[in-house]
Amino acid sequence: MPLLVVGSVALDTVHTPTEERERVLGGSAIYFSYAASYFSAVRLVGVVGEDWPDQHTRTLRQRGIDTSGLQVVPGGKTFFWKGRYLPNMNDRETLEVHLNVFGDFQPQLSAEHRQCPFLFLANGSPRLQLSVLEQVNGPRLAVADTMDLWITEQRDDLLELLRRIDGLVLNDSEARLLTEDENLVRAGQQVLELGPKFVVIKKGEHGAMFFSQHETYVLPAFPTERVIDPTGAGDCFAGGMMGYLAEQSDFEPRTLKKALAYGIVVASYAVEDFSLDRLTQIARDDLELRMERYQRMLSF
Amino acid sequence: MPLLVVGSVALDTVHTPTEERERVLGGSAIYFSYAASYFSAVRLVGVVGEDWPDQHTRTLRQRGIDTSGLQVVPGGKTFFWKGRYLPNMNDRETLEVHLNVFGDFQPQLSAEHRQCPFLFLANGSPRLQLSVLEQVNGPRLAVADTMDLWITEQRDDLLELLRRIDGLVLNDSEARLLTEDENLVRAGQQVLELGPKFVVIKKGEHGAMFFSQHETYVLPAFPTERVIDPTGAGDCFAGGMMGYLAEQSDFEPRTLKKALAYGIVVASYAVEDFSLDRLTQIARDDLELRMERYQRMLSF
Repeated sequence: MPLLVVGSVALDTVHTPTEERERVLGGSAIYFSYAASYFSAVRLVGVVGEDWPDQHTRTLRQRGIDTSGLQVVPGGKTFFWKGRYLPNMNDRETLEVHLNVFGDFQPQLSAEHRQCPFLFLANGSPRLQLSVLEQVNGPRLAVADTMDLWITEQRDDLLELLRRIDGLVLNDSEARLLTEDENLVRAGQQVLELGPKFVVIKKGEHGAMFFSQHETYVLPAFPTERVIDPTGAGDCFAGGMMGYLAEQSDFEPRTLKKALAYGIVVASYAVEDFSLDRLTQIARDDLELRMERYQRMLSF
Repeated sequence: MPLLVVGSVALDTVHTPTEERERVLGGSAIYFSYAASYFSAVRLVGVVGEDWPDQHTRTLRQRGIDTSGLQVVPGGKTFFWKGRYLPNMNDRETLEVHLNVFGDFQPQLSAEHRQCPFLFLANGSPRLQLSVLEQVNGPRLAVADTMDLWITEQRDDLLELLRRIDGLVLNDSEARLLTEDENLVRAGQQVLELGPKFVVIKKGEHGAMFFSQHETYVLPAFPTERVIDPTGAGDCFAGGMMGYLAEQSDFEPRTLKKALAYGIVVASYAVEDFSLDRLTQIARDDLELRMERYQRMLSF
């Protein structure tokens, strides 16, 4: 079933301890869309400026992603992020961030986009996320991501959002910030009490935790020695997860756990090169092969 | 089959953000022995001073641990460690450490102890570990732990030890220090090249990674919201792992993976209270129940 994603579309400059890339394709909605496209039809809503290379749109279309919701602002500049990874490749510092056209983004969904049964609210302010949520006609599953910035600066809107969505995906430091609890098991359970039916805490190289009223579990990351650029790994995780849920069109506990596992597998490919460079080389079969290895790894 | 462990026996003063305990039963060989005792016969070799409460020896004997190798030095003082955990309960700082009688410890194994087929060299200098290894008559499986101190101060002896043991257990920061590689997958593979047939990297609340010539995998920690005192968790992990291997008396890949899982399960109980307080309340059945939950958690 079709999956709608609304979020940032960016040009990223990424420095790692050994290499750097200038103005490569990035942004939460981009990574999410590409990862989800292995599983289901994806409709992308976002905004870019005049500096956006058409070639990036073609890259997305080649995987069947609907880019009709990608608005180009004449005279505008695309969201730009520049960051540097520390030697552990898990921590990073932001060197520059220019919201540009994304700062004023007020998405107006098309009639078709409003009917999408699966919705992911990627990186964006809770106000923006709420505005999108209100435009969609009773989605079967609405899941959001959030960020430290919104937890501290738009807490009330975020709390309002949490009461209205089915699932929240956030990382470990954000979960600790939101709940003021250092223990991730307790933190996850506390986020659950704020409204969502399920919560996923991303732990980067350490995998992901899942929380619902009846279940708490953790799945490790797929171990890889080739970590070239972790940018977008969390968005690829969410994309794999939501893509699989949209494909299966059910939210049974069993399906949800498998969705998390697919998210982990897609993310493990994504970090193996800059931008979407690794993902553009793989097919669904590669995901299935690694998924089999991952399942074998966890059985004893 | 009997399992011999040689290592530190200590009295610990532990401060957590909410509580503190003075001079409680601790030390690597103690945590290891107690955890292993759920699975196999354990023979403990260590040293204590006159301040050692007899009650602690009784606690060990009640689980059938052979304490005939626990030497009491008249006029001496037991190894003492005082530490404080940071709010995340994963990082800690050492406030005081007095090696006392452990500083001059030169274990002389009894004839019976020399015949033990399973050997674990817990915390101690590589020189001490090598001296013990030389006393044991061709153990079927010899595994060692190490510490940052020995990696920096007795590197040559440690490298000599690594060429002569079957397995090494160390934590993530120690693996990075030993190999100067931040990526744990590569670090584990590099330690393997130093000699051992298998390497286990402990990641605290994030679980453990396993490396052999043919296999690399990671298992997550069992998620627990009740983390009261993580002291000794790594030693309990090693104890559960080695105890299960000694019980099964084989080192097939399948057995090794299950051994890691048992180590994770025992450690998840150990952190639920100070010292051995939680472990003294549980039986093998409790471990089996949590093991079933852990296996279910990882299947999808």
